[in-house]
Amino acid sequence: MLTLYPEMFPGTLGQSLSGKAMAEGKWSLDAVNIRDSATTKHRNVDDTPAGGGPGMVMRADVVARALDGAAPADDPRPRLLMSPRGKPLDQARVRELAAGPGALILCGRFEGVDERVIEARKLEEVSIGDYVLSGGELGAMVLLDAVVRLLPGVMGGAESGTEESFEGGLLEYPHYTRPREWEGRTIPDVLLSGDHAAIAKWRRQQAERITAERRPDLLDKG
Amino acid sequence: MLTLYPEMFPGTLGQSLSGKAMAEGKWSLDAVNIRDSATTKHRNVDDTPAGGGPGMVMRADVVARALDGAAPADDPRPRLLMSPRGKPLDQARVRELAAGPGALILCGRFEGVDERVIEARKLEEVSIGDYVLSGGELGAMVLLDAVVRLLPGVMGGAESGTEESFEGGLLEYPHYTRPREWEGRTIPDVLLSGDHAAIAKWRRQQAERITAERRPDLLDKG
Repeated sequence: MLTLYPEMFPGTLGQSLSGKAMAEGKWSLDAVNIRDSATTKHRNVDDTPAGGGPGMVMRADVVARALDGAAPADDPRPRLLMSPRGKPLDQARVRELAAGPGALILCGRFEGVDERVIEARKLEEVSIGDYVLSGGELGAMVLLDAVVRLLPGVMGGAESGTEESFEGGLLEYPHYTRPREWEGRTIPDVLLSGDHAAIAKWRRQQAERITAERRPDLLDKG
Repeated sequence: MLTLYPEMFPGTLGQSLSGKAMAEGKWSLDAVNIRDSATTKHRNVDDTPAGGGPGMVMRADVVARALDGAAPADDPRPRLLMSPRGKPLDQARVRELAAGPGALILCGRFEGVDERVIEARKLEEVSIGDYVLSGGELGAMVLLDAVVRLLPGVMGGAESGTEESFEGGLLEYPHYTRPREWEGRTIPDVLLSGDHAAIAKWRRQQAERITAERRPDLLDKG
């Protein structure tokens, strides 16, 4: 993790499911301060945008030095840059990353990163959604949380992860649990029938209905 | 914030830009433990899914009690449930939330939340992206970070936030800063020309090109 805020890590990832998995050695994270790669007296990592405009831009030379120091050029791990301009992260890419050798993740800050280092170091821009955050750190945490829960031995149930949203290209069906009646609302009869085939069919139909209502774009993809 | 992990908050949000704004009283967050609304001896918040299947489901009665305890029925704040089945968060919704009275945010865990409380308490399901996280907490942090940076007086530059990705429906143009030449790569001449109209035109063209290449779906929206 290359960041200007190494103290943010592991943060939330050190708690709950991912924290337990980290304590068990199932994954690890090294947070490197990009500022340690600055060479000026004041350890500048950014400068004003060429052509004017608000904010500051992260310098290509400093970022490249941080990347080159973190991994050799032939390191097989993908080099991700968290950025709203990136390809939207989806569960398929999460599965690929979980099956892969790890990743170098660069957290952008300020207005962005000098385009030349993105090109020269072949950074893969990844977006977690169509909104703007104050920096890439939270996006990197989201990516890691999604990936870590799919690592072998991290999730409790063996089936977990196969019956959830985006698996099969659908949003998840509705869930119910006890009590059987609550504020006059009851659990659908089929779920209490014990008829496993009928339950599976109902859930599939519900997942299809919810996806069609809320996210027809997912059906077009599939 | 209604969560089973109140100790996760403010977490990362207590640092950097949002942390400074919080310290200055520009926003605040109360994390409430859903477990405090459990009534059984073992303070259960979840139970097995009706109809079978992996994982656990958050109980409607416990979640409703937590929500009702946190705000009266006529509270004007939207009631958000972080969930991969929700409407995808975008910068327009972020702006609405930043202009609004705040929000009640419920962080789901386990397989999900009993559908009846989603209906009965009119929860608005919000998704931060098409991937599955170990819980709603990180999603809530992402939402808050995006919202908080737009609150009055939080961001440094007055113009910041108006020249960035998704404003005008486009991804952001490429950034450059010093040094002028790096590893044989130079800053585009137009950005060094001092011709503000030409610079604005180039940036607009670049934003359009990048959006067309990477996210034609955004152009269809606009």
